[in-house]
Amino acid sequence: MAIIVQKYGGTSVGTIERIKHVADRVIKTQQAGHQVVVVVSAMSGETNRLLALASEIATQNNPREVDVLVSTGEQVTIALLAMAIQARGFKARSYTGGQVRIITDDAHSKARIKQIDDEKIQQDLQADTIVIVAGFQGTDEVGNITTLGRGGSDTTAVALAAALKADECQIYTDVDGVYTTDPRIEPQAKKLDKITFEEMLEMASLGSKVLQIRAVEFAGKYNVPLRVLSSFETAQTAGSGTLISLEDDDVEAPLVSGIAFSRDEAQIKVTNIPDKPGAAFVILALVSDANIEVDMIVQNASHQGIANLTFTVPRGDYQRVVDILHQAKDILGDSEIIGDDTIVKVSLVGVGMRSHAGVATKMFQILANENINIKLISTSEIKISTVIDEKYLELAVRALHKGFGLAQ
Amino acid sequence: MAIIVQKYGGTSVGTIERIKHVADRVIKTQQAGHQVVVVVSAMSGETNRLLALASEIATQNNPREVDVLVSTGEQVTIALLAMAIQARGFKARSYTGGQVRIITDDAHSKARIKQIDDEKIQQDLQADTIVIVAGFQGTDEVGNITTLGRGGSDTTAVALAAALKADECQIYTDVDGVYTTDPRIEPQAKKLDKITFEEMLEMASLGSKVLQIRAVEFAGKYNVPLRVLSSFETAQTAGSGTLISLEDDDVEAPLVSGIAFSRDEAQIKVTNIPDKPGAAFVILALVSDANIEVDMIVQNASHQGIANLTFTVPRGDYQRVVDILHQAKDILGDSEIIGDDTIVKVSLVGVGMRSHAGVATKMFQILANENINIKLISTSEIKISTVIDEKYLELAVRALHKGFGLAQ
Repeated sequence: MAIIVQKYGGTSVGTIERIKHVADRVIKTQQAGHQVVVVVSAMSGETNRLLALASEIATQNNPREVDVLVSTGEQVTIALLAMAIQARGFKARSYTGGQVRIITDDAHSKARIKQIDDEKIQQDLQADTIVIVAGFQGTDEVGNITTLGRGGSDTTAVALAAALKADECQIYTDVDGVYTTDPRIEPQAKKLDKITFEEMLEMASLGSKVLQIRAVEFAGKYNVPLRVLSSFETAQTAGSGTLISLEDDDVEAPLVSGIAFSRDEAQIKVTNIPDKPGAAFVILALVSDANIEVDMIVQNASHQGIANLTFTVPRGDYQRVVDILHQAKDILGDSEIIGDDTIVKVSLVGVGMRSHAGVATKMFQILANENINIKLISTSEIKISTVIDEKYLELAVRALHKGFGLAQ
Repeated sequence: MAIIVQKYGGTSVGTIERIKHVADRVIKTQQAGHQVVVVVSAMSGETNRLLALASEIATQNNPREVDVLVSTGEQVTIALLAMAIQARGFKARSYTGGQVRIITDDAHSKARIKQIDDEKIQQDLQADTIVIVAGFQGTDEVGNITTLGRGGSDTTAVALAAALKADECQIYTDVDGVYTTDPRIEPQAKKLDKITFEEMLEMASLGSKVLQIRAVEFAGKYNVPLRVLSSFETAQTAGSGTLISLEDDDVEAPLVSGIAFSRDEAQIKVTNIPDKPGAAFVILALVSDANIEVDMIVQNASHQGIANLTFTVPRGDYQRVVDILHQAKDILGDSEIIGDDTIVKVSLVGVGMRSHAGVATKMFQILANENINIKLISTSEIKISTVIDEKYLELAVRALHKGFGLAQ
């Protein structure tokens, strides 16, 4: 008998009909011989409804009280799902984060789970009871309600799976798995049967928003097999989604697993910086002091002792960065600041790159064949990212998808 | 410095505007030099909205899960009120029933408070923080969420006031106090400045629905002065409501404090019962076995060893009682069952009756003068109840109100 943790997001529990559908699926899993723990989000729209009430009071509210407010969303769902399972004649029991003793730090609205007491859950599972836990929430050590931040229900599910030593953590969502790239851009995109935690992290952080990054990190750290599945497929069409797990040494890893991209990018180039130690630091410190996240950073020394520094920031922060740098003329001296907020990032991701040379060369060749100019390059062990003009995004994704044979 | 507990019902916190209005009132109380604890209900309509969701799942749901569901209503209000107070620059902190350790028994949906841990509240009050507590809810000893039943927020307020040894428990509602009778029937009805717990209990149980009976009982038991006030009056027009407290020996109590009435009544008369011990018991046992509450009971032995038994039940149970008695013909033998569901109960209430004879006589005289026939009479130390035809209700209330000089 296996312990399975299933997580259903807001859309999957968005109406009473859908909650009943989830109840059916959960019961089916139990009847297949498993012990089931279910983690649910607030019904879609509910968190926004609650936040809208708060915003009628003030634009900025006390984070402790915001957590008290929004945590009611999941509490409603756990009760309704428990009722739906009970109405079908099966045993179920709901728990808020606080009741099941999900202890977090006290960082309201972005708390991190420190500890889970699984005693009550284990007792319920022994008694054939389906356990339903509110996602996204916990309490700090003195009993204040905390939330893990948006999407934190994924993290709750993975943390519970780790604490219970579950055999699998299944994340039900509105897509049926992780794809080689976004099917809206490349209709030939193929669902991946499996992918490693590392690849999934790169895919997620690069803009394929299937899973919370933190949840994937957590799953990787505790080696909890994660499976992404669609909650909307009927029993007839249900596939097995995508399994995210540790690298499997037995199988030859594919060279490239997928192509991720992000439109939320802007590029800043600072030229004519005196090429001496600390110059790049001063510039980047100005940006990070304003709480702006810098992504790719490339510095190249040019001739005559001066350097150019290029970096990317989220597109929403672009104008602020330009303003900050212009106001720092006394520091930057003769430097020229050249910005571009019409760029995108396209990346190849794959653990196979570790053991194969020439992937980058092939990537640049494919893009060159399409006359796409690469503005920036950044590489890591399992990914290669390029910055290109946004008008070439679709062309680049399709060319790379075809060039690396991902549709086969 | 006094500790004041204030309770605001669902209508008083029914919109964000009203919650802000409550925040102003609470702050004003603190600025008058008091330590303030606020108990709030769910925003009006919210509990019904949640119950409607549950009823889409099943007509009868597990009471434990219903409590998990509906307790979110008050949790939303405490967070919003805390935010509203904080937005005005004052310190506030919200607590769910479970967080403030309101421990109840495990009778879901009608739990009774067993214990309150006031340590956190006292600490907050010492730090000039306004404490906001979710009414209507608690947890049982193993941490399951419980609710006290509809209107239970009054009970929460009184229980907190008792635990904190508060100087006054103020119940803000949509009326500005307790009246000598219902002003919709007698426009001359006068607000009472004070009334005793016992009188309030009789007024409430007889149909003047200002306060929860259980809350008044609790207040009486722990001698917590209760004050009913309107939350809709502006600062200019605000009166001091009605104070409900122990009998004051210094002041000559008025003969009659008020006139209560109830339309929710039906009368059953069983005639020709053999006048022997146990006959009445058998009949009433049939009714109470069906979980129907019997209110007034009058038995009179008539001539020739047979008796008549007359009793009243809630009007909604009338037909069931008639059916039950007809099906028990073998027990009742030749008895005749005569029902009447067009009757009402009108009662005089007043602690002054204890020390004054002749109140009943005067009451009967006033009704006789109006040609109103009295069908049943029942008396206690501080009340006299009569059953009359429902068509005479308004006439009787007005005649008694005038006859006992209540408008002066």
